[in-house]
Amino acid sequence: MIIDCHGHYTTAPPQLQDYRDAQLANFRDPSNPAASLAQISDDEVRESIENNQLRALRERGADMTIFSPKASAMAHHVGDEHVSKVWTRMNNDLIHRVTNLFPDNFIGVCQLPQSVNVPIKNSIEELERCILELGFVGCNLNPDPSGGHWSGPPLTDKAWYPFFEKLVELDVPAMIHVSGSCNPNFHATGAHYLNADTTAFMQFLEGDLFRDFPDLRLIIPHGGGAVPYHWGRYRGLADMLKRPPLTEHIMRNVYFDTCVYHLPGIELLFKVIDVDNILFASEMFGAVKGKDPETGHYFDDTKRYIDALELSDADCKKVFEGNVRRIYPRLDAALKAKGK
Amino acid sequence: MIIDCHGHYTTAPPQLQDYRDAQLANFRDPSNPAASLAQISDDEVRESIENNQLRALRERGADMTIFSPKASAMAHHVGDEHVSKVWTRMNNDLIHRVTNLFPDNFIGVCQLPQSVNVPIKNSIEELERCILELGFVGCNLNPDPSGGHWSGPPLTDKAWYPFFEKLVELDVPAMIHVSGSCNPNFHATGAHYLNADTTAFMQFLEGDLFRDFPDLRLIIPHGGGAVPYHWGRYRGLADMLKRPPLTEHIMRNVYFDTCVYHLPGIELLFKVIDVDNILFASEMFGAVKGKDPETGHYFDDTKRYIDALELSDADCKKVFEGNVRRIYPRLDAALKAKGK
Repeated sequence: MIIDCHGHYTTAPPQLQDYRDAQLANFRDPSNPAASLAQISDDEVRESIENNQLRALRERGADMTIFSPKASAMAHHVGDEHVSKVWTRMNNDLIHRVTNLFPDNFIGVCQLPQSVNVPIKNSIEELERCILELGFVGCNLNPDPSGGHWSGPPLTDKAWYPFFEKLVELDVPAMIHVSGSCNPNFHATGAHYLNADTTAFMQFLEGDLFRDFPDLRLIIPHGGGAVPYHWGRYRGLADMLKRPPLTEHIMRNVYFDTCVYHLPGIELLFKVIDVDNILFASEMFGAVKGKDPETGHYFDDTKRYIDALELSDADCKKVFEGNVRRIYPRLDAALKAKGK
Repeated sequence: MIIDCHGHYTTAPPQLQDYRDAQLANFRDPSNPAASLAQISDDEVRESIENNQLRALRERGADMTIFSPKASAMAHHVGDEHVSKVWTRMNNDLIHRVTNLFPDNFIGVCQLPQSVNVPIKNSIEELERCILELGFVGCNLNPDPSGGHWSGPPLTDKAWYPFFEKLVELDVPAMIHVSGSCNPNFHATGAHYLNADTTAFMQFLEGDLFRDFPDLRLIIPHGGGAVPYHWGRYRGLADMLKRPPLTEHIMRNVYFDTCVYHLPGIELLFKVIDVDNILFASEMFGAVKGKDPETGHYFDDTKRYIDALELSDADCKKVFEGNVRRIYPRLDAALKAKGK
């Protein structure tokens, strides 16, 4: 099996965005009408997937995507706690409809209701609903709900601990994934995403999160941000800061995906990061949707780059399936229940 | 000749830091005594260089370093405009003493007096002093004087234009280099530096800075942050955002240095970035001072990684000397005046 661990529902029917626009208009000015989601038919959901993610999944030879709401639209920095909760629940419910319509191809990862200065424990209720009631297998955790102002504490701060405790209890991983940026310095997918990946890794290096949570599993997407390219810098910093080696201190708990959109980048990733820590992913459809004029193939068809590495069968199996099933045990259980 | 374009005076005699501590104590509470710099003898300056940067320069087989004050100590986010001006001038004067004592091995690049919400045109006076009176050949420009809060406008904003006009007029490049971080989310050398590099590149991608300043030359240090590793993402984003190809839109004006502390990273850099855009550098002594236990050599001995690439003689000459002399024409003129 080939499982893509990082896909977003960026192609949802337009009623969803219409709702969001109305919701925020009402939040800004309560004299605007209360928002309500116009009905979305099963056919509309089906079409939005079949013509997009599922078509590409098939064309590219993959079987399944771990699927979550559009990351840039989580926008935890707008509205308030209630707005975020309603919007989050709606998005997760829509993912649930996709996974019900295409149970063999999609399994859910949830968005969380986060807001600036709202304790992360308030996100646990929606996490539990998605994992325990909707059959989801993980979540996306935003390390910067302020949207590029980084006004909250680092991930290693005890303020996050109640949530990590719950992740361990439920035995689900989190992907560390920011949302859109309201800071004009940071383009969302071209700067904020990669900066957040890099930042999270360095927070883990400085802190002792995995001493406190030896069973916690976190995925840093987009190939780990700048980290593999600067692997020597991080090994050297660990040494200078008297931290244990990265392999012990971080890489028993942290995984990088393969959302790196050219062969030289993927080559580097596999050269410096242990294959046990790499999860196949394409971010489909995410930051970059076009075709690379140099190759004639889609930038985000990351399977092609991995295929070009000519890994051993055992390593291929790890990257495309085994690691993902290990990191997402609820996915593994769901597949086993189907005899897969 | 082998010229390292990125070295910092991180080994200055302790009187400098004593002054800074007193300066800030006085700023916080004017009842503390006014700060004054205790005398630093030529021998002290000489020793601080001979036993450190110059020793390493010789051991590693390089000839010259483009030398600037310690970047993390610029700390534009502390004090006010006056504090920043006095501190900056003092640091630049100390660099000038180094270049006078070791004219064959060091040439100056200046720190700038920047402060939050102070117009960048106020930095021009010190730039001109350093270039026109002290014989410096460039400057370090901090894209985030807030120290990790990114409260100012992007580099492509017209607010920065008076400074870029002056750079073009003086025919000197700027290295885009942040300072320390006062945001607990960002470790300085492990996150803030690399994030700033990545951020600046994406700002250039979104904006039209080099249409307005076709002769402006900017160096993005630390191997370009996350950019080369995600070169496919950036090529794809340029396409999606209807920007010209990166080669035309950015890479006629932007250069990456080689401060990447392991061979696989350097291999990637040279694989994806045109050799004309790469400048040899080690950041000596910067983020990582130790030896790599895997190789037995210093992490920041980047010349070894480049040597291992077995570039053609012509490409070696570009990376180690030619590109630097082209990007820093005042360095080239200074060398030519010495018959080099």
